[in-house]
Amino acid sequence: LSGYRSPSTARRVRAVLFDTFGTVVNWRSGVTAAVERFAETNGITLDAAEFATLWRGHYQPSMEPIRSGARQFVTLDTLHRENLELALRSKGFDTSDFADDDLRALARSWRYLPPWPDSVPGIGALKNDVIVGPLSNGNTSLLVDMAKFAGLPWDTVLGSDVSRAYKPHPDAYRTPARLLGLEVGEVMLVAAHNNDLEAAQRAGLATGFVARPLEHGRGQASDLAPTGNWDVSAASIVELAQQLHINS
Amino acid sequence: LSGYRSPSTARRVRAVLFDTFGTVVNWRSGVTAAVERFAETNGITLDAAEFATLWRGHYQPSMEPIRSGARQFVTLDTLHRENLELALRSKGFDTSDFADDDLRALARSWRYLPPWPDSVPGIGALKNDVIVGPLSNGNTSLLVDMAKFAGLPWDTVLGSDVSRAYKPHPDAYRTPARLLGLEVGEVMLVAAHNNDLEAAQRAGLATGFVARPLEHGRGQASDLAPTGNWDVSAASIVELAQQLHINS
Repeated sequence: LSGYRSPSTARRVRAVLFDTFGTVVNWRSGVTAAVERFAETNGITLDAAEFATLWRGHYQPSMEPIRSGARQFVTLDTLHRENLELALRSKGFDTSDFADDDLRALARSWRYLPPWPDSVPGIGALKNDVIVGPLSNGNTSLLVDMAKFAGLPWDTVLGSDVSRAYKPHPDAYRTPARLLGLEVGEVMLVAAHNNDLEAAQRAGLATGFVARPLEHGRGQASDLAPTGNWDVSAASIVELAQQLHINS
Repeated sequence: LSGYRSPSTARRVRAVLFDTFGTVVNWRSGVTAAVERFAETNGITLDAAEFATLWRGHYQPSMEPIRSGARQFVTLDTLHRENLELALRSKGFDTSDFADDDLRALARSWRYLPPWPDSVPGIGALKNDVIVGPLSNGNTSLLVDMAKFAGLPWDTVLGSDVSRAYKPHPDAYRTPARLLGLEVGEVMLVAAHNNDLEAAQRAGLATGFVARPLEHGRGQASDLAPTGNWDVSAASIVELAQQLHINS
């Protein structure tokens, strides 16, 4: 494996790992479709796109007690289910009115999300030169199902339940490097979120930005452009793979 | 994913995980070739095939203190290196006569082993119905390199450094099931070694035997046939995939 040059870490990058939700897969369209099905099955009226955003709004706060050590590690599957019930209650629903199987299926919709059009070919191109995998807050089981559904050709899937840490905790970035037998500077995080890349860079990783201006729908105001000194920045994973290959 | 029926666990098998050394890859031919190169580079005379067997002979004993808890977990890369030096000394060599880089490269030859001819197509066929991956004493980094070299299309690679347990310790079989979000009875171990399958069955897994009558070269006396009540038994991984598919 030839690897890529990283100016920021002064090492050759041997593994390129990806944030998944928003960077590799379009969670918003996938979750919105699942909410629509849930609403139809249960005969309720719900703005599915708005509800997906509301649900996702609980994502970062729900990991905070685990990052700080106030709560023992639980998987993202568990947090997705808790956050779903929070969101339903905040819309005035009594969650005990719904079948447990329906709630479980909706909570697991984060496994079955469409990839952005460039994700599969872009990751496939990188796979010739480096190890590719997710570096996500998703648990291993969730990420394996995501990969099989979306056709993501990962070399390995090491979920947050392996490191038992949620990004941006440094352990979340360092554990995959250790398990891959690499120095942190030999691993690149690719993400559509500047704050994720900032934390990865602080932990010693190389960094790559991919713009996803439609992650949050039209009118998105954040993460439209790279805000840090990242090794590479591109409009798609295919373009990122080309840039890395040219500059290798 | 449709999965397969397991008579022994009375569950549907959602993941088929493989022993690797001997079952998926031909360690003997790969390591023998690496020993030949090492001997040539260093101008020493060594029966490479015999030395490979001698080196492999230290494999199981070296894991024993870790299984019993007498020694803290170290990776198989570390044990391969220690065992290589043991084997060289037992043949009368002073290991300090060799360059550290040469010893390291030879110790890492366990990453670059040829697959049996049926391994890649057989695993590829199973991948349509179930999650596929290794369940090996190899560490994650070793197994990822093995997969990239041999073209093994795993869905994920969770090495023994994730469970921090060596087979046949029950944790080695149960940890991958837990991380895949599955009951132990929903996971099948495929191996060419009856004792590995016995331990997997005791830990609650479904089991599949693949005969590898040339693993130890001509005149092999062990593991020529299944000796237990395994769910499936076949002469190749391709045949195993066909049998599971037919009986699914």
